Amino acid sequence: VTRSKLVKDLIEIVGQANVLTDPELVRPYAIDWTKRWSGSAELVVRPASTDQTAEVVLACGEAGVAMIPQGGNTGLVGGSVPPNGGEVPNAIISLTRLNSLEQVDQVDRQLTVGAGVTLEALQDHLTQSGTGLAFAVDLAARGTATLGGMLATNAGGHHVIRYGSMRNQAVGVEAILPNGKEISRLEGLLKDNAGYDLPGLLAGSEGTLGIVTRIRLRLVPRLDARVTALIGVDATATCVSLVARMRQELPSLEAAEIVYEDGLNLVCMHTGLPLPLPRSWPTYLLIECAGIDGREAGQLLEFLESVGLPDGSTAVAMEGPGRQRLWAYRERHTETVNRLGVAHKLDVSVRPSLLAEFEAQLREVVRVHAPGSTLVLWGHVGDGNMHVNVVGPGPGDDTVDDAVLRLTARMGGSISAEHGIGRAKTRWLHLVRSESDIDVMWALKRALDPAGLLNPGVVLPPA
Amino acid sequence: VTRSKLVKDLIEIVGQANVLTDPELVRPYAIDWTKRWSGSAELVVRPASTDQTAEVVLACGEAGVAMIPQGGNTGLVGGSVPPNGGEVPNAIISLTRLNSLEQVDQVDRQLTVGAGVTLEALQDHLTQSGTGLAFAVDLAARGTATLGGMLATNAGGHHVIRYGSMRNQAVGVEAILPNGKEISRLEGLLKDNAGYDLPGLLAGSEGTLGIVTRIRLRLVPRLDARVTALIGVDATATCVSLVARMRQELPSLEAAEIVYEDGLNLVCMHTGLPLPLPRSWPTYLLIECAGIDGREAGQLLEFLESVGLPDGSTAVAMEGPGRQRLWAYRERHTETVNRLGVAHKLDVSVRPSLLAEFEAQLREVVRVHAPGSTLVLWGHVGDGNMHVNVVGPGPGDDTVDDAVLRLTARMGGSISAEHGIGRAKTRWLHLVRSESDIDVMWALKRALDPAGLLNPGVVLPPA
Repeated sequence: VTRSKLVKDLIEIVGQANVLTDPELVRPYAIDWTKRWSGSAELVVRPASTDQTAEVVLACGEAGVAMIPQGGNTGLVGGSVPPNGGEVPNAIISLTRLNSLEQVDQVDRQLTVGAGVTLEALQDHLTQSGTGLAFAVDLAARGTATLGGMLATNAGGHHVIRYGSMRNQAVGVEAILPNGKEISRLEGLLKDNAGYDLPGLLAGSEGTLGIVTRIRLRLVPRLDARVTALIGVDATATCVSLVARMRQELPSLEAAEIVYEDGLNLVCMHTGLPLPLPRSWPTYLLIECAGIDGREAGQLLEFLESVGLPDGSTAVAMEGPGRQRLWAYRERHTETVNRLGVAHKLDVSVRPSLLAEFEAQLREVVRVHAPGSTLVLWGHVGDGNMHVNVVGPGPGDDTVDDAVLRLTARMGGSISAEHGIGRAKTRWLHLVRSESDIDVMWALKRALDPAGLLNPGVVLPPA
Repeated sequence: VTRSKLVKDLIEIVGQANVLTDPELVRPYAIDWTKRWSGSAELVVRPASTDQTAEVVLACGEAGVAMIPQGGNTGLVGGSVPPNGGEVPNAIISLTRLNSLEQVDQVDRQLTVGAGVTLEALQDHLTQSGTGLAFAVDLAARGTATLGGMLATNAGGHHVIRYGSMRNQAVGVEAILPNGKEISRLEGLLKDNAGYDLPGLLAGSEGTLGIVTRIRLRLVPRLDARVTALIGVDATATCVSLVARMRQELPSLEAAEIVYEDGLNLVCMHTGLPLPLPRSWPTYLLIECAGIDGREAGQLLEFLESVGLPDGSTAVAMEGPGRQRLWAYRERHTETVNRLGVAHKLDVSVRPSLLAEFEAQLREVVRVHAPGSTLVLWGHVGDGNMHVNVVGPGPGDDTVDDAVLRLTARMGGSISAEHGIGRAKTRWLHLVRSESDIDVMWALKRALDPAGLLNPGVVLPPA
């Protein structure tokens, strides 16, 4: 009875076509990108505006139905899908129809977007605007990932070293709170100390404190003069110290990625790419500098010369196809891992200065806790973020995950660098957050969502 | 009886010398920098460690005494001093003894400081470290302002255009909550999405949600190759469009300040400085670019050439004394205003694209609401922050303040760009924050400080 009342109410708000109750239609929304996380939902509702979102939240709240906000559903930690079983029925609130793209404001270097706009749609919009402005965050799932989801998970990507993560790009937000009320801070003010930073709090809260409906984004100059270098070195420690020097001397440094001999060989084997350098190296550093004219390339070459790298250890590319060839050695790691089997994927970070020690201990931990498995590693050197992929253990066997996360925590690292906690990692949150820290987070959660209906079970472990 | 019990408890925690009860000694702590805000406190307590701070908070909480956290007491909005009268007795918690300065971590480009370290002590420490690293935020009160206070107010300064404000510099914090519990996130992780962003929430909360005791700060390369230019132009609109182009073409742009003919003439009159350019201009833009070698100066000169400014409209300096001479025209505005009398000081912001329109309307509003007064304006063009100083109306007469803040709000601006709300502006908060927004802030406040003993009356208007 309650359910049919809710369906009727929702249809009144968003129209029949935007309330999905057929299990066939609901299912794709209830399983995430990794296929590891899925659950059951009564329905999917697709509001097309902030006002509709508010009404949907009120209706679900009245019905006592849990709400699962969802963007492009490209998350990797089960934060965008319902739990497998749960105390109350679930409704997935899909926000992809909030896809308005406003005009680019060239002087203020900002624009306002709906939460459902995909990263790729934003990029196209900016290119077509002819303003010479670009968006600072980029990631592989650009065709599907929405700006709202990216903000809710505080997405990172390759350019964090230069521009920060999603939280740093949101000059303001509009959101619907669990009580159905709207807060709006879309004025685009770069300096605004009038009270608590609610936009920053919503960023990274993974849809547990409010539903972001629109975002005011800061933009950066579009930098078309790019130079990419792939550098073979002996070890992680060398990468770390090289990048530390680059950060000091090359302000145009935009990405600094690390891959390893074993991973790169697998990539070459699976993709047919030739080895990138005349000989093989234990570790590879991929860097990119970007500016508005050609000076950056010259600065980088000067820098590399001053470092005195061995002959044949470096490949440099300045034109698009050449740069893409170098990037492929990094970017095609993901598909290579996927071909090997279902990977245990962990996204951890430590201080950059600890990265070499972390890598060594990590290899040992994986060897001990997942003997015979294949470990494929890559990461972002500048921010100490390492993506750990272990192929071998069955999907239900969390032994190696647990061991890696414990190692990370022992070294003062984070169990989630950029993917979020979702449902996947709540049981490990205590490794990196103290009891009083988790208590504070629960206090904030209860303050905004006393009924606990907004994305329950995500981020916070049971109180 | 309660009071003497509290004094006894506090002496046990911090020692006799660090509990001040003599009204003579308490008074300087209870009046702020502007002399406009003062109140009464039972005592001042000066903990020397995080643990002592936690015990102090517990003791005050048990005694039902309100706590006023205080750093260098350089605030301008009454946020660091007790109210003039109030429901409960007050204790000022002075944090200046939390002055530990840890070693600079060169690879991670970070260090941890006690909340009571002054900005100047940090700057000296960094210079002496020989690491080539610097702190991104700088402001005039550097000798007294503490990092804890600067974080609590999310201080801005000249370099926000390049590096962001204090919130962006805090990689992590340690803080004592109103319940006496400690939260600690000092691992220095540049990517860490494990739960809600508590450091960001504490930043700018003006001591109402917790007492920051230590901060992990990010550092930036020390840039000694600097070029400063003072450019005379016809109007604010020209400054805004010039700066928009500079932000696109000069990544080394670090400051973009605006001053006006009337203010600059007063500065010259009061300080004896000669006029900076062969002729007078309605508006002056002061910019600075910074890098590690001389390239930035060349880029700036090329840019200025390409703009085609009239002869004699620009003064450029690359050496320290010359640059200081140009900066003096901006920096000596404050003392000039102080000599004119007690100013009504407002710190507002609008979108940069609205700055010219705002300036025009502001002059009219001040003319109407404070006839015969002297208006002195300066600001930061890149972030739309304008400092409004009106000398004329008596200190108790808020007519012009009210009119200026209403104008700002009508234009979508903030009533506090970088100073905070403090006690001074709570009654205007509703101009820029909706009822539901203020409700959320109150919900967060009550969640963390249910007894309402931490800096009551600051930031939030009465519920």
